[in-house]
Amino acid sequence: MKTSIDLNADAGESYGAWVMGDDEGLFPYLSSVNIACGFHAGDPLTMQAAVRRAAQHGLGVGAHPSYPDLPGFGRRILEAAPEQVYADVLYQVSALAGMCRAQGVALRHVKAHGALSTRAWTHAPTAAAIAHATHDADPTLPLVVLPATLLETEARRLGVPVVLETFPERAYLRDGRLAPRSMSGSSIHDPREAARRAVMMVREGRIEALDGGHFGFEVDTLCIHGDNPNAVEIARAIRAALEEAGITVRAFPVPPASGPQAQR
Amino acid sequence: MKTSIDLNADAGESYGAWVMGDDEGLFPYLSSVNIACGFHAGDPLTMQAAVRRAAQHGLGVGAHPSYPDLPGFGRRILEAAPEQVYADVLYQVSALAGMCRAQGVALRHVKAHGALSTRAWTHAPTAAAIAHATHDADPTLPLVVLPATLLETEARRLGVPVVLETFPERAYLRDGRLAPRSMSGSSIHDPREAARRAVMMVREGRIEALDGGHFGFEVDTLCIHGDNPNAVEIARAIRAALEEAGITVRAFPVPPASGPQAQR
Amino acid sequence: MKTSIDLNADAGESYGAWVMGDDEGLFPYLSSVNIACGFHAGDPLTMQAAVRRAAQHGLGVGAHPSYPDLPGFGRRILEAAPEQVYADVLYQVSALAGMCRAQGVALRHVKAHGALSTRAWTHAPTAAAIAHATHDADPTLPLVVLPATLLETEARRLGVPVVLETFPERAYLRDGRLAPRSMSGSSIHDPREAARRAVMMVREGRIEALDGGHFGFEVDTLCIHGDNPNAVEIARAIRAALEEAGITVRAFPVPPASGPQAQR
Amino acid sequence: MKTSIDLNADAGESYGAWVMGDDEGLFPYLSSVNIACGFHAGDPLTMQAAVRRAAQHGLGVGAHPSYPDLPGFGRRILEAAPEQVYADVLYQVSALAGMCRAQGVALRHVKAHGALSTRAWTHAPTAAAIAHATHDADPTLPLVVLPATLLETEARRLGVPVVLETFPERAYLRDGRLAPRSMSGSSIHDPREAARRAVMMVREGRIEALDGGHFGFEVDTLCIHGDNPNAVEIARAIRAALEEAGITVRAFPVPPASGPQAQR
Repeated sequence: MKTSIDLNADAGESYGAWVMGDDEGLFPYLSSVNIACGFHAGDPLTMQAAVRRAAQHGLGVGAHPSYPDLPGFGRRILEAAPEQVYADVLYQVSALAGMCRAQGVALRHVKAHGALSTRAWTHAPTAAAIAHATHDADPTLPLVVLPATLLETEARRLGVPVVLETFPERAYLRDGRLAPRSMSGSSIHDPREAARRAVMMVREGRIEALDGGHFGFEVDTLCIHGDNPNAVEIARAIRAALEEAGITVRAFPVPPASGPQAQR
Repeated sequence: MKTSIDLNADAGESYGAWVMGDDEGLFPYLSSVNIACGFHAGDPLTMQAAVRRAAQHGLGVGAHPSYPDLPGFGRRILEAAPEQVYADVLYQVSALAGMCRAQGVALRHVKAHGALSTRAWTHAPTAAAIAHATHDADPTLPLVVLPATLLETEARRLGVPVVLETFPERAYLRDGRLAPRSMSGSSIHDPREAARRAVMMVREGRIEALDGGHFGFEVDTLCIHGDNPNAVEIARAIRAALEEAGITVRAFPVPPASGPQAQR
Repeated sequence: MKTSIDLNADAGESYGAWVMGDDEGLFPYLSSVNIACGFHAGDPLTMQAAVRRAAQHGLGVGAHPSYPDLPGFGRRILEAAPEQVYADVLYQVSALAGMCRAQGVALRHVKAHGALSTRAWTHAPTAAAIAHATHDADPTLPLVVLPATLLETEARRLGVPVVLETFPERAYLRDGRLAPRSMSGSSIHDPREAARRAVMMVREGRIEALDGGHFGFEVDTLCIHGDNPNAVEIARAIRAALEEAGITVRAFPVPPASGPQAQR
Repeated sequence: MKTSIDLNADAGESYGAWVMGDDEGLFPYLSSVNIACGFHAGDPLTMQAAVRRAAQHGLGVGAHPSYPDLPGFGRRILEAAPEQVYADVLYQVSALAGMCRAQGVALRHVKAHGALSTRAWTHAPTAAAIAHATHDADPTLPLVVLPATLLETEARRLGVPVVLETFPERAYLRDGRLAPRSMSGSSIHDPREAARRAVMMVREGRIEALDGGHFGFEVDTLCIHGDNPNAVEIARAIRAALEEAGITVRAFPVPPASGPQAQR
């Protein structure tokens, strides 16, 4: 049984004069953050402030690269060629890594944002491009992935350390896919229910599926959505419930890099 | 007397489908390049290709950060606050450094582009922000500067290694300033004259001033403009004349980092 | 004595997923709005929504063109050539005009945003470029200007109808300039004081200067800052005070186009 | 039999300091141009210059709206919501229309660029959004479409005047689709062959299909690719062949607006 878990959320999603999310309110409940790198959010000053704040709270800092799409907040799939995805991800991760280094902070993970992530779940060339760029930025850098997606497959195939992520605020189907947002009950808004699910996910490694039965999985990190109106409340409830259940909230241990898997 | 000199030019100034400059034609005559980092030119794929090509030619690779101004190609002064300049420069230098590292190439220098550079010549807070960001990206990284500007002053004050740059295609005034482009004779277009000046600059450490007399200086690197229609011809002429004069063209040795100067 | 006045504020300053300002809360108290056109804020969907909402409230709709500077929100001076300013302003005004027309709404004015406006106060070529672009978008379109600036001068010189603007939340100096934000007392945050000043400005055509005495002026429109935390409260107080004083709040009458002034 | 035809090409595809295409070389052979509107190419100054040059050559001016994608030149499909496509197209068409009006030039048509066009061939909501925006910009404005696509269907359904386009430099399949670029022979590079095809397309209303037989169609305008290295040569050859065949090259007559088709 797991006795500790990581809690991550997106951060640094402001841009210039525009504010998004409540980093200050949310950070006390987290153990890791995924910081926007300028392509969907996060101008350089915002990135720098987010790194500083994350370090002050002792959080693990990750890069959150995206398609280049400020007006769409990186939520729209862009049919970019794999070599473009590779270069875009490497650029963004490197930029954030340098801003971390300048503050004496280590970059600990990479997580693809929004539509880039969604596309990588089912499009192997995009998944491979993200994994490849993560590896080339730093071969020890883990990629946070949704289990049972092509992104997990490609990351493992390329020997990129993998961190498995689950969403306590999202319903799952029996086959492990996230329930589409169009389905009733696909999003959990009640902090207590989200907290209950978080504890069950960590303790039992499974969760009730929206279409009946359970979905079982491994989990290294729970993701909390920072853009909910009650995000802080949910984060607090989840953290409190985990600690009450005897589960320590702390940044995931960095998994070992394995080198590319042998192709059999 | 100097027996070797660096020849640098801007590179990687294409953007997506748009091509600028003739990297392929120019690189054989250079020893260093300043690669655009995405803010005035240089999308990630272009950057990656420029790094690869520079490495193939054995050139020293530098970052060429700019104000964020794609439509103006970074040639328009933007009254950005020093902390914005700092973050923008650190972001760009870090992004390129990571793309270099992924190809096993070392980033060797930083040079401010266009209006950012011009502003730093006379605006101390901008100069300090550039120098500070260069230092924080990597304390051993030298900054290429125009001698006798506030950019040189601030870089030295902050202990950033300094590389002194001269332009064989630009006329100087007696006091060391570049002759304004509005003055007749301020730009040299004749390859033979540019080559003669390059040799004189390196051998004698001085050049005839447009307003009479000579201007004397130290020089570590000669900058060739890649955006002239006959840039390749000029580069070839300069390189040939230097070699004929017994001067080896090679990347400047990295000057030692001194730590911040004592404030007396 | 004036019996009616226009109340304007900036609007449509959100961008994609980022929200700025409280258009919904503010619009009931206004008679005109200046809608961002995509260069400092306002993606096309945001512009469209702002036009629709303004029309629902019966407000006069104006275009609020800016330097191209999303990360700086158009608040940083960019040393753009006058022909660039002309083309940028014409582009933005035309884009908004078309979005208005598609909803059966008439574009009623143009007002330069942020640093573009500030620069035009003292830089004649920029002022002329803005006025010229406004005229070429539609010769009957008035330009909202700060009185006694080069923007007013150039607009009048080019025969662009002029609407004079005053800021009840900003202190003035005796000579009519806005008191610099660095001076104590330069900004008025108390709704009652702002309301008192608004009434005095309209009724008496003058206001106490921060450096003693009064500053007298003509005024066609009062500008309320939408980005104050208590912007809605201030707008409500100003509107209530004006109406209590018997002053009708309504969009300014469009001044006649005069054609270029004879040059004597 | 047709005795006249329109020849169109994309124009104004430079951006700031970057040049693309040879507008000056190409325009003498055309009768219409599609001018980029800032989202994939064409900053405001470039747009203005393209409008001026088109007017000097007596060409019909059209707007060439795109997905917002400068680094990808609008060639990558972006899964934008239909309401975003609508607002983006309306914004771009309006901006160009205003820049035309300022020069006394009438905007005569709209043609979707690159990936936006490709997506609209098979994605009805995108097609409808483009047609709807064109209508709302000006109900008399025709949309240039590839025949037998959903873009034609949706434009006709919404009562938008339609101009049918054919590509003399592209091979077709029997069923009327463009032969995929991956197929051998899909692109015609020989000016004489392109010219022969252009004449046959106009005179006979059909062309040999790459997979055997012929494909028959109506045609109002022939599109020449401006981004081929030998674009000018091809344009000259096509124009000469058409004139030799007694076919006048001139801008298409604007088709009448029909109002939305009755839904039966």
